[in-house]
Formats: sequence, C-alpha cells, structure tokens
Amino acid sequence: MASSSSANFPCAACKFLRRKCMPDCTFAPYFPPEEPQKFFNVHKVFGASNVSKLINEVAPHQRQDAVNSLAYEAEARLKDPVYGCVGAISVLQRQVMRLQRELASIRCDIIRYAAAACDEMPPTTTVGRSCFGHGNVYCPSSQWNNEHYGDNGGSDGGSL
Amino acid sequence: MASSSSANFPCAACKFLRRKCMPDCTFAPYFPPEEPQKFFNVHKVFGASNVSKLINEVAPHQRQDAVNSLAYEAEARLKDPVYGCVGAISVLQRQVMRLQRELASIRCDIIRYAAAACDEMPPTTTVGRSCFGHGNVYCPSSQWNNEHYGDNGGSDGGSL
Repeated sequence: MASSSSANFPCAACKFLRRKCMPDCTFAPYFPPEEPQKFFNVHKVFGASNVSKLINEVAPHQRQDAVNSLAYEAEARLKDPVYGCVGAISVLQRQVMRLQRELASIRCDIIRYAAAACDEMPPTTTVGRSCFGHGNVYCPSSQWNNEHYGDNGGSDGGSL
Repeated sequence: MASSSSANFPCAACKFLRRKCMPDCTFAPYFPPEEPQKFFNVHKVFGASNVSKLINEVAPHQRQDAVNSLAYEAEARLKDPVYGCVGAISVLQRQVMRLQRELASIRCDIIRYAAAACDEMPPTTTVGRSCFGHGNVYCPSSQWNNEHYGDNGGSDGGSL
C-alpha cells in the first residue's frame, strides 16, 4: 500500500484534480503524491471516474494489483496509441509459437539422430547407450505441437 | 472498415448514447450497429469521450487497429477486472521463459550426447557422423539464455 493522504500532502489524484484530499479518499492509497505521472496516465486513458469505479468494484486486497495493471496499460497506450499493450501480447504470442516450433524441431532431430545411431551401430560396439526407437522416424512439427504444446497456444494469452 | 451510419441505422455508439448518428460520426466506421457489445465494452472501460479522442489522434489508416485493440483491452478488463489483458502478458512472459529454458536445456543435452558419443566411439567404427566437440561440456542454462535468447526477454513484451 502506498502512503495515505493528509491535508498537507494530498494524493497525486486530488492534487491533479485540484480537490481536497479527504481521509477516506479512494485514490490516496494507490496514487501517492510522489508519483504524479501514474495518476496522469490512468486519468488520460481511462478517466478518473472509471478508475474510481474499478477500485471500488474489486476486493480491497486486489486493489493495488488492479491499479498497477491499469497504470501499466495506460502507459503502454500512451507510448503506442494504436496497439497499446495489445501490441506486447501479439509479440509474445509470436515468440511463443516460434519457440514451440524450434523445440519441436530439435526434439525431432534428437529422435532421428538416436534412431540412426542405433541402426548404424556395429554389433560389437562398446558404446552403452540405449536405443529408444530406430528406423524411419515420422515426426512432423504439427504432431509435436499438438501432443506437447496444445495447452500453450492462444488460450493462455488470448488469441488476437 | 465497418459499415457507415445512416439516419435509419445509427451506429452502435450513437444508438447507445441515444443521439443522432450524423454522416461524419467519428464512431460509425468502427462501431457498426450489429456489434453493440463492442461499443458497450470500450465505453464502460475507457469512456466514449476518450475513445473518440483516441480515434481522432491516430492516423486514419490506423484507426481500425486502434479501435480493435481498445475493444480487446476492454473485453479483457471486463472479464478480469484486476489484471485485464496485463494478466495475459504475464502468462505469456512466463511461458516464453519456460520455453527458453527448455530449449537451452535440450540443446545442452545434444552437445553432451554428441561429445560423449565421439569419445566412446571405437576407432574402427563405420558410423560416419562428425564429432562437433568432445570431452566435458560446460553448458549452464544461463549461458545459453544469455547467448541465444538475450533479445527475447522483457524488452519485447515489457517486463511486468
């Protein structure tokens, strides 16, 4: 929790809105006077009234998180008026898909490598590795994606 | 671009706000009458006035994307009042880090496996694989993360 307000030190919201900061001020616990930009941002993007409504709608123990996530969204929207933080979601979703493809591909390479090594290994070799699968290995990326990463796609982050 | 307004079919915004939808309505191209929920959401989260300001602030060719990203954010906030779409960013960031660790680990296994296979291979073997590195391989995850994935972390999606 941030600092509470007093008559001498109004919170950043009351100072910006030029109003008296009362002891029961909704904004004061989350918008301390030393962080004026935080309130400026959420006010510009969401409006003070909507922020106040949201604070009152969520449980007291979740209010700090709610305000922080609003502040994050607001800052992202002011930096990127077109995409806001949805741009970050899009970048991260592409990154996840790329990493999943890379992982599936490398796993497939390992299976092929191990299978080929087993097939080519002379019977008298002293190499003590176990052969987990041999012969032709059919291992398309899509199969691996479905089997191993079906839980990671758009459902976590919301498909855009 | 969505459908334009007419006197008979006001856009979703003008219908909700109970006002006459004029031919130069700011909302009409982006809030067609058949999508009332889209305007309801952005109005509830951002306020109609802020949405109108944002539409006018961005270039005409980017307005559809801007409205769609606002609609996405608004829907996420109404579904999850505490974290909104910032929750999705957090989930995706963790997923990226987990995949990066997994990929680094599996790459390290490959190097160790190849090195051990080269060391244990009898000189007369007919296996025609090239040995890329042998002996003890020091391959901590952090090294791989720094070398191969230093560009993927918080900078893309914004660290929370």
